[in-house]
Amino acid sequence: MPVANPVVTDLSEQELLARIFPLLPVGSRTLLPPGDDAAVVTAADGRYVVTCDVLVEDVHFRTSWSTGHDVGRRAAAQNLADVAAMGARPVALVVALVVPGATPVAWVEGLARGLGDACRPLDAGVVGGDLSSGPVLVVSVTAHGDLEGRPPVRRDGARAGDVVAHAGRRGWSAAGLELLLAGAPDVDPGLVAAHRVPDPPLEAGPAAARAGATSMLDVSDGLLRDATRLAHASGVTIDLDEPLDVLADDAARLAAAADVLGADVTTWLLTGGEDHGLLATFPPDVPLPDLFRRVGTVTQASSEPVRVAGGPPCVASTGWDHFRPRG
Amino acid sequence: MPVANPVVTDLSEQELLARIFPLLPVGSRTLLPPGDDAAVVTAADGRYVVTCDVLVEDVHFRTSWSTGHDVGRRAAAQNLADVAAMGARPVALVVALVVPGATPVAWVEGLARGLGDACRPLDAGVVGGDLSSGPVLVVSVTAHGDLEGRPPVRRDGARAGDVVAHAGRRGWSAAGLELLLAGAPDVDPGLVAAHRVPDPPLEAGPAAARAGATSMLDVSDGLLRDATRLAHASGVTIDLDEPLDVLADDAARLAAAADVLGADVTTWLLTGGEDHGLLATFPPDVPLPDLFRRVGTVTQASSEPVRVAGGPPCVASTGWDHFRPRG
Repeated sequence: MPVANPVVTDLSEQELLARIFPLLPVGSRTLLPPGDDAAVVTAADGRYVVTCDVLVEDVHFRTSWSTGHDVGRRAAAQNLADVAAMGARPVALVVALVVPGATPVAWVEGLARGLGDACRPLDAGVVGGDLSSGPVLVVSVTAHGDLEGRPPVRRDGARAGDVVAHAGRRGWSAAGLELLLAGAPDVDPGLVAAHRVPDPPLEAGPAAARAGATSMLDVSDGLLRDATRLAHASGVTIDLDEPLDVLADDAARLAAAADVLGADVTTWLLTGGEDHGLLATFPPDVPLPDLFRRVGTVTQASSEPVRVAGGPPCVASTGWDHFRPRG
Repeated sequence: MPVANPVVTDLSEQELLARIFPLLPVGSRTLLPPGDDAAVVTAADGRYVVTCDVLVEDVHFRTSWSTGHDVGRRAAAQNLADVAAMGARPVALVVALVVPGATPVAWVEGLARGLGDACRPLDAGVVGGDLSSGPVLVVSVTAHGDLEGRPPVRRDGARAGDVVAHAGRRGWSAAGLELLLAGAPDVDPGLVAAHRVPDPPLEAGPAAARAGATSMLDVSDGLLRDATRLAHASGVTIDLDEPLDVLADDAARLAAAADVLGADVTTWLLTGGEDHGLLATFPPDVPLPDLFRRVGTVTQASSEPVRVAGGPPCVASTGWDHFRPRG
């Protein structure tokens, strides 16, 4: 007799897969969908972009704070953001999933629905996966993209004189996490939702490439840390304008949460991770594509890879390191 | 001052990555290597094959039995086998790695060396990855292959009258695991090594495709279980000849271990998993490519998807299910 609210061990691997597969989009560029040893995906461009990111329970998410659907959307979104940050259009995902036997099947179905909901509007397929038992939930996603004939937008192409621009949210995820940690999610549920599920500006990636962006990366570890990466790779300095000015909309949104928590808005703007916005540089004469806001200027390399409002950055920490406690 | 035998938490993420990257091959078809948001890989064929498989500590391996190098080679090999089973040539891997902070850095470097050693001879690159802390080791590999202009060899193309053939080892990994579990690895260290690191016949995959194989799959869960998958997908019955005859070499190799453990050689031959051999079907007039041995015949679908020596299979279990204890 079927169990009413089954957990993973109540089903065979085949039964679990039979529940997951129908929830996942195939994608119109998938020539051979999941079910064989491997899938086959078109690459009309003659190249493909590939990236991977892993989410681990109690490191990147908590099941008490995030539903399976949240985690599925987040896992997809942060990988899709890496594809977009190359200037590519997302095409296909594969997903390896580790699940404790006591995980409700509904949680796993929610995860699959979340992956599907993130991919379906883009016509990106979930073309393969693997499933294992294990002591914690692990969601490992590999994402593939299509450069549509363009060169990839790398992080090493910024040149002095370029405009620095950012698309997407800044600091929302960090503020949402702090609200959750403080047990005060009601202060701004929108920030908490932004922590649970980032909403990267995926369209802005290919748009930046078409507009001639000289460099771009996904801001996963905070603006300072990722701008530093871009500066080092390009051999330049990134001069950010006053964040409270150039990111005024984000600053306004973060004000109430900062007030309640006694936190600093500028620190969130500069060091908050996991919003998965796009940081790009453009030649000075190029009109910025939709969603991008000018946040600074590229200058010749100086003693600091990143400067803020003309000086060295003054914040406690430059961003997130998975193996180090945050300062 | 540097620590003598550092563990993962002694290093920053960047320091750990700086130790791993030099150990990994880039591959000549990698246009943009790791270091940006995503890698870029050539796909001259206009398509790519993609598959993923995850290994979890204490589910798929134990650090007391397997070195990091073993686990790296195994993780690569089983994914490369899935690529080969489509008739494709391996091109690129990406690897997501979850490591407890107390893991010796040397273990992680060994893993990277193992991945590299498995990929380098094939000119396959390790083109990307992600790293996270977590409570157990998890190695999630996504592998990509090049069909070189051929159609993929699917599992649904077997036709009555075809010859069934197998390339690679049968039962070695299962026997090696039993020897380890029994504390008797010295009975046959070669079988134990085959459990730690499978040696799939990767060249045989493209060779089978060139020879006109009508179907093929990677035997990861045992001959009976995977032959059943092939039979169901193709709508046929797989009639296996007496395994002790057609797999006589494997049977001879397994005899001593079976003797010591009181185990049944035929059961290992039919149900042992994780050798990652290739099971394929060929039109009857085709000379079998190198490494393939004839093991049976495809017949019209009958009451049993798989028959052994003319009758229903008589073994205790048909193979491995990650969520069910073995019978």
